[in-house]
Amino acid sequence: MLSKNIETFIGCDNAYEESKIVIFGAPFDSTTSFRPGTRFASKAMRGESFGIETYSPYQDKDLEDITVFDGGDLELSFGNTSRALGQIEEFTALVLEDGKIPCMIGGEHLVTLGAVRAVAKKYPDVHVIQFDAHADLREDYLDETLSHATVIHRVWDLLGDDRIFQFGIRSGDRSEFQWGKDHIFTNKFNFNGLEDVVEKLQGKPVYLTIDLDVLDPSVFPGTGTPEAGGVSFMELLHAMLKVSGLNIVGCDVNELSPIYDQSGVSTATACKVLRELLLSLKTN
Amino acid sequence: MLSKNIETFIGCDNAYEESKIVIFGAPFDSTTSFRPGTRFASKAMRGESFGIETYSPYQDKDLEDITVFDGGDLELSFGNTSRALGQIEEFTALVLEDGKIPCMIGGEHLVTLGAVRAVAKKYPDVHVIQFDAHADLREDYLDETLSHATVIHRVWDLLGDDRIFQFGIRSGDRSEFQWGKDHIFTNKFNFNGLEDVVEKLQGKPVYLTIDLDVLDPSVFPGTGTPEAGGVSFMELLHAMLKVSGLNIVGCDVNELSPIYDQSGVSTATACKVLRELLLSLKTN
Amino acid sequence: MLSKNIETFIGCDNAYEESKIVIFGAPFDSTTSFRPGTRFASKAMRGESFGIETYSPYQDKDLEDITVFDGGDLELSFGNTSRALGQIEEFTALVLEDGKIPCMIGGEHLVTLGAVRAVAKKYPDVHVIQFDAHADLREDYLDETLSHATVIHRVWDLLGDDRIFQFGIRSGDRSEFQWGKDHIFTNKFNFNGLEDVVEKLQGKPVYLTIDLDVLDPSVFPGTGTPEAGGVSFMELLHAMLKVSGLNIVGCDVNELSPIYDQSGVSTATACKVLRELLLSLKTN
Amino acid sequence: MLSKNIETFIGCDNAYEESKIVIFGAPFDSTTSFRPGTRFASKAMRGESFGIETYSPYQDKDLEDITVFDGGDLELSFGNTSRALGQIEEFTALVLEDGKIPCMIGGEHLVTLGAVRAVAKKYPDVHVIQFDAHADLREDYLDETLSHATVIHRVWDLLGDDRIFQFGIRSGDRSEFQWGKDHIFTNKFNFNGLEDVVEKLQGKPVYLTIDLDVLDPSVFPGTGTPEAGGVSFMELLHAMLKVSGLNIVGCDVNELSPIYDQSGVSTATACKVLRELLLSLKTN
Amino acid sequence: MLSKNIETFIGCDNAYEESKIVIFGAPFDSTTSFRPGTRFASKAMRGESFGIETYSPYQDKDLEDITVFDGGDLELSFGNTSRALGQIEEFTALVLEDGKIPCMIGGEHLVTLGAVRAVAKKYPDVHVIQFDAHADLREDYLDETLSHATVIHRVWDLLGDDRIFQFGIRSGDRSEFQWGKDHIFTNKFNFNGLEDVVEKLQGKPVYLTIDLDVLDPSVFPGTGTPEAGGVSFMELLHAMLKVSGLNIVGCDVNELSPIYDQSGVSTATACKVLRELLLSLKTN
Amino acid sequence: MLSKNIETFIGCDNAYEESKIVIFGAPFDSTTSFRPGTRFASKAMRGESFGIETYSPYQDKDLEDITVFDGGDLELSFGNTSRALGQIEEFTALVLEDGKIPCMIGGEHLVTLGAVRAVAKKYPDVHVIQFDAHADLREDYLDETLSHATVIHRVWDLLGDDRIFQFGIRSGDRSEFQWGKDHIFTNKFNFNGLEDVVEKLQGKPVYLTIDLDVLDPSVFPGTGTPEAGGVSFMELLHAMLKVSGLNIVGCDVNELSPIYDQSGVSTATACKVLRELLLSLKTN
Repeated sequence: MLSKNIETFIGCDNAYEESKIVIFGAPFDSTTSFRPGTRFASKAMRGESFGIETYSPYQDKDLEDITVFDGGDLELSFGNTSRALGQIEEFTALVLEDGKIPCMIGGEHLVTLGAVRAVAKKYPDVHVIQFDAHADLREDYLDETLSHATVIHRVWDLLGDDRIFQFGIRSGDRSEFQWGKDHIFTNKFNFNGLEDVVEKLQGKPVYLTIDLDVLDPSVFPGTGTPEAGGVSFMELLHAMLKVSGLNIVGCDVNELSPIYDQSGVSTATACKVLRELLLSLKTN
Repeated sequence: MLSKNIETFIGCDNAYEESKIVIFGAPFDSTTSFRPGTRFASKAMRGESFGIETYSPYQDKDLEDITVFDGGDLELSFGNTSRALGQIEEFTALVLEDGKIPCMIGGEHLVTLGAVRAVAKKYPDVHVIQFDAHADLREDYLDETLSHATVIHRVWDLLGDDRIFQFGIRSGDRSEFQWGKDHIFTNKFNFNGLEDVVEKLQGKPVYLTIDLDVLDPSVFPGTGTPEAGGVSFMELLHAMLKVSGLNIVGCDVNELSPIYDQSGVSTATACKVLRELLLSLKTN
Repeated sequence: MLSKNIETFIGCDNAYEESKIVIFGAPFDSTTSFRPGTRFASKAMRGESFGIETYSPYQDKDLEDITVFDGGDLELSFGNTSRALGQIEEFTALVLEDGKIPCMIGGEHLVTLGAVRAVAKKYPDVHVIQFDAHADLREDYLDETLSHATVIHRVWDLLGDDRIFQFGIRSGDRSEFQWGKDHIFTNKFNFNGLEDVVEKLQGKPVYLTIDLDVLDPSVFPGTGTPEAGGVSFMELLHAMLKVSGLNIVGCDVNELSPIYDQSGVSTATACKVLRELLLSLKTN
Repeated sequence: MLSKNIETFIGCDNAYEESKIVIFGAPFDSTTSFRPGTRFASKAMRGESFGIETYSPYQDKDLEDITVFDGGDLELSFGNTSRALGQIEEFTALVLEDGKIPCMIGGEHLVTLGAVRAVAKKYPDVHVIQFDAHADLREDYLDETLSHATVIHRVWDLLGDDRIFQFGIRSGDRSEFQWGKDHIFTNKFNFNGLEDVVEKLQGKPVYLTIDLDVLDPSVFPGTGTPEAGGVSFMELLHAMLKVSGLNIVGCDVNELSPIYDQSGVSTATACKVLRELLLSLKTN
Repeated sequence: MLSKNIETFIGCDNAYEESKIVIFGAPFDSTTSFRPGTRFASKAMRGESFGIETYSPYQDKDLEDITVFDGGDLELSFGNTSRALGQIEEFTALVLEDGKIPCMIGGEHLVTLGAVRAVAKKYPDVHVIQFDAHADLREDYLDETLSHATVIHRVWDLLGDDRIFQFGIRSGDRSEFQWGKDHIFTNKFNFNGLEDVVEKLQGKPVYLTIDLDVLDPSVFPGTGTPEAGGVSFMELLHAMLKVSGLNIVGCDVNELSPIYDQSGVSTATACKVLRELLLSLKTN
Repeated sequence: MLSKNIETFIGCDNAYEESKIVIFGAPFDSTTSFRPGTRFASKAMRGESFGIETYSPYQDKDLEDITVFDGGDLELSFGNTSRALGQIEEFTALVLEDGKIPCMIGGEHLVTLGAVRAVAKKYPDVHVIQFDAHADLREDYLDETLSHATVIHRVWDLLGDDRIFQFGIRSGDRSEFQWGKDHIFTNKFNFNGLEDVVEKLQGKPVYLTIDLDVLDPSVFPGTGTPEAGGVSFMELLHAMLKVSGLNIVGCDVNELSPIYDQSGVSTATACKVLRELLLSLKTN
């Protein structure tokens, strides 16, 4: 039913029907308050993905061994946030309905809300693991409730207490951290405690959202709000591999803004994160 | 009532009460479909304005001779277009109410709609002169009616036939040009016919909107959708001086996107256009 | 037989069989001695083409009205110039055989040699019109006979005297200009004399090669060897329209190097040149 | 007495009278021999500071909890080094006189000399802690004694032996290191030995100068003379927190050159260093 | 006596003794108040000069036909303006003494003062022709009398009334223009009136100073203070050729700041201006 | 016999006859399939080398203490790979013949093949140590056997099994790793096992090839194919010092592509790697 996109992410050229995983872009950044540009992430990643290999020496696996369909980019409304989130939710629901794992490429972090809405309908007991530099827990931001800075609070509105697990957080206002203490699990600065969370979530459906700014800006400058003091690529990779034993029913990588890194390193690194993420998913 | 902004555009450091002209930034680009970034224009222009002089050898006038208040930037909602336009309309109305000329710095071209709404309330017979590369006459764009690509159609919704005069237009789809023939005056490519329009609008209230991409991209690369074949700075200057004899009750310059021109030339040129515009306004 | 490329140049999404014109990329720059990068031109142009319209207000024509197939990029050998030229010749011959007009996107200017070889086989009396800043008439360059700096001399090897017409030339060594006087027609600096040439070539098969560095570097900085003192976009457009009455059996645009112009203006301008070229071709 | 600067560093909008700390810019780089540009640091930091939070999750403190006045930028003479240093000394003395802590934003490292002159007058027994990649210990540089490359030698002229403590040094000529052995304390490459120095300086007045190029260029490329092999942001942060128990009577951060890092990461990191520095100062 | 620099400007590899013209760099920008970087001009021009040809199709002359020695760059004191000007004067005097024409590559425009001092000693009746966007006639700037903004006033201090002829001027404060009316000849915006001046200066010794920002920023963005509304390359070339009939005893090109134009076009254009200048000098 | 190049790498200005080491550039990148630009490396490194010191605080040695001749850049054929490799081999042989150590600055990694050919003729039992992110072990690439992606396979063609030792490898296709297991020693990701290799190669002639992309892209973004997860500068430095006890008869550093890192950090880091490499060579 869905037609195949020829310019795909490297090694993701399977037909929709035969694929276990579906990647798609959500090029939306209308609520970004500081520096926009994440709308270009998915397009840039497809183009630059041909600079990396399909084979991972870390996992000794190859994208050729698995089946991934690249659905291209959603055509989202700019300047109409509610409608754009609805469009993301709709597409994610379609993929879930067909028994596949949706893997979204943002866009600003708010796009996660659209995907989680669909996932939470199919898996009411879904838990969320968030790798991120920013807490994203504001109740509202400049009077708007739908914002990149409020997205995890909105996810909490859907899921409630004890369902969200944050790692790598190193920025937020005081009230976010205080509110968070009562409602979600936050590990500041790094991935300490991740094993315990993985242990705890065995058997549960999990949605994994990777805000790429969890990486140190030295290795990932191409993002809207860089925060010094982040994790290295190898630390992120190891964290992803730890999580990969869980039942991941949906995931996303977001907040790449290619224009801020003219060396192309950020895009190349995002491609490598996505490759490792795809290879790590259990698709039985 | 309004407090003074210390980092002003060069030579625009008068108090609100004593000023005949009020400049302010509308840093909004949420509907920009191609390359965002105009939100940074007003801030960049204030900073770079200190690279130009307050004196114009073209008009033999000096910003020190006139009174301009720089109201700083409006805090606009990102991702909520209707609200943002309301905020612009409200501020513009306030300035008009106090008998001053509002001169807005965009932002994407859609911000003009907010200002024109306020102007049309005070001056129901207002006419609009538009310098632009793009017709901006679509009925809707990706299903949205409020968009940088529809803004002049929306202005027409307010004002009706024979009230809008476009110059420099060199891009649009076929239907825009066809629709335009019945409703507005369009001069393609350059400023031919401007004298006649100026003649015709003597004594009428006029709103002047300058989309800076009317300039050739050689002199103004720093914009979201550059279109080869534009006018030179001197041609734009002469057109502005022709218009300056009219009763301009409001104006704007828009679509500078500083990030796409790392040489700084586009920002410097925008500053010079603004200086000449301010000096050309009749403030009796 | 050939499959359709989904990410096409804007408006060029017709099937091969039904198309009168075939565009394709020749991403080759291995002999570029100064600043490489033209290999990225065709890919960049496809991506950025969505920033322009399919409709031309200059010709009042629309890409939707004509039939163009976008064959994607040839996979050319890097570092093996002879083989790469052979691959270009082969593809061009295929297109000609099917009665279509080949329109190649370079690549460095040397790629023209591959296309002209195929064209000259089908049309032995083909004439070449070249718009360029550089004469490209060297006998050899750093001991190599196949080079961007020798390409028109190599074309002369194929076609002989009085078959090549150069316009806009403003750079070369003295010996190139001297040799040229006896063998080809050279008009320096601009398009003077083009009408006469057009008159003379009525009814003859013509290959048109546009080295985009004929444009002034102000409007086209994104090229390997920028030469001040070039023509404006409007001058190039008018020259193209003059030539369009001829029987053009093949054409190319080349020498865009997107990386040297981070504003994107050069790529946008190249797209607009290509749109106007496609719309101007007689395809009856 | 001093008027308030509206565009302040984030959270530093207190009135002069009520503030314990005064930040100010010293935009001077006239002696920079390699790549100038630090003159833009303070302006860039104020603008970009709104991309970080006022709250530090590292120290669990907020800029809202303390009182900082932002005095804007000094207007320094370009091309007249002696006069510029005099202007810095004068302003620093004024701040000290009023019982506040001066915190200067460079500029090239030479600006430290102006501030230390004022500090040494009020606190003759002041000790200097320097975090830096470069020794800056030359006697003269290209025959000039006032230079970014001689600044710590000039500070030694004022203070004498055993008063200067360098950390992170990984560049200099052989003679600098040899001279340094007899006159100052140098720890190469990292912060080893900092605890001992902190122990030793308990109760003494201390001036802390942070040349931001002590950071590894991966996280801080935006500087004139990047030196591979530097410390990470977290190492610098921990070193700053160790020093914060001392009686710091003045401090500076310097050598950010925003133009060399178009990603904005260096400026954002400098802002974060300044936030942490301000929050770490003992103010009563 | 002077040794030869191997990395020379293209075609300028003659020995000092046999040369009629001597080019040398004056990489100084310490008084630049806005955006420094002209110190890199001469080095960048030498490197990029290999992208242009030695032959000029405009003049039908070749750098191989004349004798030019490239003396490399002077080692100038940064941050000590008086000393730097003395160094320039000294070198220029040496070249003049040996009967050669000095042709300096700036640096900021202030370097012209050093050269004119030497020239005025040998030729007390020297006249100065200045191509520039800025009047540079301030009495002082930020209290400094030696500044890029005062340089022509300082030249007037040496030469007096009716000896200086400015063309292309489009920026300055009102007082500069007013002062200028009584003391020098100023033609605003373009080269109108140049023929008359050339007529008038027949037989007189002339120093020609070309501030490259006289060019429109579209073709020359790589400069510290770009001013829209400048002349084209061809207009500048024609003006240079008009002046070339005069007895030019010294000259300079200045204010290229390569870092602000990453396309390299500004540097390439500066190289072409220098080539044409060198070829146009009468050296008999 | 060879003449001295005046613009040398810092501190490498000895005469050929008196030098123990000879550095030279091999500016070749014609087979680069992804992003070209390494041809500019040697030129950029010479220019930027003046931003580092000749003295190494790591080794407490100074370039002034040793004798290095900088032979400038080879003039290599672009687009004719075989000939270019022949030119490299020839020059390397010349240096070896004169009893000096050749130290080549690439260029893409393929240039290593030319140098190793010459080395293997003089030292048939030469062993190769490779620091690299990529295995470079393909049998052919896009049908070409001479390619940056096949270079180490080609070296193996010359030397056979058990003579090549790779470290830091983190990218390749599956078949490369599989083939490698039987023919060469590969240590993935880091320098583990280097001591053993050094132990094993005592007394043997060794060629050391450093593909600078072995460094993490955070510290070395300026390369064609950046691969996250690399080593730090200090790790590379320690590895080089371990190797330095061996009998290194030739070496190279390659794959710097300056244009992709506008901060200049990559070039500065490459310079520092080269300085440390030169200082670490045993020249008895």
